[in-house]
Amino acid sequence: MNSFAPALMTDQYELTMVSAALKDGTADRSCVFEVFARRLPTGRRYGVVAGPGRLMELIRDFRFTDEDIDFLRRAQIVDESTAAWLAAYRFTGDIDGYAEGELFFPGSPIMTVSGTFAECVVLETLILSVLNHDCAVATGAARMVTAARGRPIIEMGSRRTHENAAIAAARSAYLAGFASTSNLAAGAKYGIPTTGTSAHAFTLLHDDEPTAFSSQVAALGKNTTLLVDTYDIAQGIRNAIAVAGPDLRAIRIDSGDLSVLAQHSRELLDSLGATETKIIVSGDMDEYAIATLAAEPVDMYGAGTAVVTGSGAPTAGLVYKLVEVDGRPVVKRSENKATVGGRKTAVRRHKPTGTATEEIIVSQGVPDHFPNDRLLQRSFVAAGEVVDQPALQESRDHLRQCLISIPWEGLKLSAGDPAIPVTIVPTV
Amino acid sequence: MNSFAPALMTDQYELTMVSAALKDGTADRSCVFEVFARRLPTGRRYGVVAGPGRLMELIRDFRFTDEDIDFLRRAQIVDESTAAWLAAYRFTGDIDGYAEGELFFPGSPIMTVSGTFAECVVLETLILSVLNHDCAVATGAARMVTAARGRPIIEMGSRRTHENAAIAAARSAYLAGFASTSNLAAGAKYGIPTTGTSAHAFTLLHDDEPTAFSSQVAALGKNTTLLVDTYDIAQGIRNAIAVAGPDLRAIRIDSGDLSVLAQHSRELLDSLGATETKIIVSGDMDEYAIATLAAEPVDMYGAGTAVVTGSGAPTAGLVYKLVEVDGRPVVKRSENKATVGGRKTAVRRHKPTGTATEEIIVSQGVPDHFPNDRLLQRSFVAAGEVVDQPALQESRDHLRQCLISIPWEGLKLSAGDPAIPVTIVPTV
Repeated sequence: MNSFAPALMTDQYELTMVSAALKDGTADRSCVFEVFARRLPTGRRYGVVAGPGRLMELIRDFRFTDEDIDFLRRAQIVDESTAAWLAAYRFTGDIDGYAEGELFFPGSPIMTVSGTFAECVVLETLILSVLNHDCAVATGAARMVTAARGRPIIEMGSRRTHENAAIAAARSAYLAGFASTSNLAAGAKYGIPTTGTSAHAFTLLHDDEPTAFSSQVAALGKNTTLLVDTYDIAQGIRNAIAVAGPDLRAIRIDSGDLSVLAQHSRELLDSLGATETKIIVSGDMDEYAIATLAAEPVDMYGAGTAVVTGSGAPTAGLVYKLVEVDGRPVVKRSENKATVGGRKTAVRRHKPTGTATEEIIVSQGVPDHFPNDRLLQRSFVAAGEVVDQPALQESRDHLRQCLISIPWEGLKLSAGDPAIPVTIVPTV
Repeated sequence: MNSFAPALMTDQYELTMVSAALKDGTADRSCVFEVFARRLPTGRRYGVVAGPGRLMELIRDFRFTDEDIDFLRRAQIVDESTAAWLAAYRFTGDIDGYAEGELFFPGSPIMTVSGTFAECVVLETLILSVLNHDCAVATGAARMVTAARGRPIIEMGSRRTHENAAIAAARSAYLAGFASTSNLAAGAKYGIPTTGTSAHAFTLLHDDEPTAFSSQVAALGKNTTLLVDTYDIAQGIRNAIAVAGPDLRAIRIDSGDLSVLAQHSRELLDSLGATETKIIVSGDMDEYAIATLAAEPVDMYGAGTAVVTGSGAPTAGLVYKLVEVDGRPVVKRSENKATVGGRKTAVRRHKPTGTATEEIIVSQGVPDHFPNDRLLQRSFVAAGEVVDQPALQESRDHLRQCLISIPWEGLKLSAGDPAIPVTIVPTV
């Protein structure tokens, strides 16, 4: 019920274009499509590449099933010869792009898809759906991780987004440096650490708060988190320590003025001898709320809505554009939406200290590059075969290194220009 | 690869709560949980219920598979007795709520889940994920439909959201009154009309624009839409009519100042004798952009990013709260997040003319209701069995009637109060 063959996750126009191109003989023209963002969401200083790992699994499975074809035929979306072409469809081209965990800027060619027109054009929607979603979440999440200054953040936003998007969001948040997720499917599928103890409902289920806490500690041990704000927080903390003793692992506060409450809670815990008991706060946490709590005795954050919705930018603005046909650059001239033709190659330039200074993108050949430069594109699919990808943990480490490499202004939460300038050298 | 058993689309704390409740004997307490929004997104005047139809399919399939249980055991998330309970899990309770296509306001009890604590608590994340996503999309979409004043809108936002969310978004947009979708999976699964002809890539693939247009018309006939803004719009329109003749169905413009371009395009089409050729506009269409074009000769809109992201409110803010245990109302007192105890019943009051005036919600019994009142809750699941639901088309018609019923101020796009007041009568 909840599964779809990826091949119908496609906009109809891709198939009508294939149909027309098969008829007029252009379907087999050799094409290059590129994925890039014309601009970053207002004021954002960088984007984070997320999704290629997930996308390549879907492209490997991208087949039109008999059921798909029947639907397309019955709905008269494709004719018989197109139906036959779709039934035989396998992507046999190449996909290159920025590694998962890489940063991107306006114009960065984060994915390049080459092959025949028809085989490339049918992947447009799937590629953009995965990348627009996952990059949006990872980028917002990375800002939260920066704001948290090393304190762990738990991703707990599954309930605020589509049930499948939730799993991808947990993956993107972990890639961006979140410590764990509440989403069990993300744990099962991607090996992300999962966490979670109890909700207000558990306290309300019981006759009183001490009874609820006793039950939780009996079941989960003292290495658990007691949620102390169902009734009165100070009393909740006293009940928690009375039940669990001063070596309770953590309390969680999910409401109220968290700055004040964190301070009072810390004082109260300390006065009860629970000096090692951690304080976890949750409730409308975004990068700004997290930054506001930097000086408070908070040990861990729980973030929900903001992380799964890209913290104000729920989609990354990535587009998929045809840039080359039979080796010849092509461009559209639409007002405000013009493109630069030609297959791009990108390098990021760094100082000897490792600080990134510029991204250079050329549409012919390879940019001159020096010892401190880094070529940004790698192979994802070669002649239709998916190339082994770095593990999620490696991509997570790569992003951390990338964020260290940009000028410090690039990490500011305030609105500003992209962290480094991008120079696009068009075809001469 | 792209399918998950719904049972792991769950936050870990639900299973740890079940585990603790099984141990202490409270797991079988009779409970009532309610889904409601504390408030609407800032300035919104109503919410649209969407998702129950989709949700009930997922609840029917909600089973912990052997693979799920193995994961939970290996990860030490549940103990053996909880694993056994999960393996036998079937929801045997009742679910009631507002019909799909119904309006909701702050506090409206849009879904009520009753059964044992354990069987209800494990559905929390799935229920909220589906409803928060689908209601958010449907609500934004309904505002666009109002702004379009009867002109059709095509949903074409799949590429801007997660690939599975895209299918649900197409469904929600159609429920809200959109005419069609570009998403083929939504067509196949839900019978929503699909549409789509060609992209700029198709024009660029060909040696020139007239060749591309000829190919498209040869393949799809004159009853198609030619995209005229790849190079120069006026020339594009001349090429389109030269190729297809004056009975071409439509042109599409996807860039530039659409107000001016629509006027110029209409004049040009008319001067070429193509007086019946429609003008479709797309590109960053939200309810405000649509409203701005009300006076222009636009025949149809294409909406993408804004519709799939809830037009500024990507999640509906719905929560799932325990309100009754063993027939006794329960409330949490958390600051700014307090709840009202007791199982609620809701009626919407209307004038004899049919205009809605108020929503009355009582937490004990059933509100007094009069001939023009409407009881708002219906049965979705009875003793574990999913009750037949209205077809999507019926829900779509129901929403149209509901929107006609609210005071005219309720349909304004500007920020304002909820369209009708909600009176919640708490337990005495």
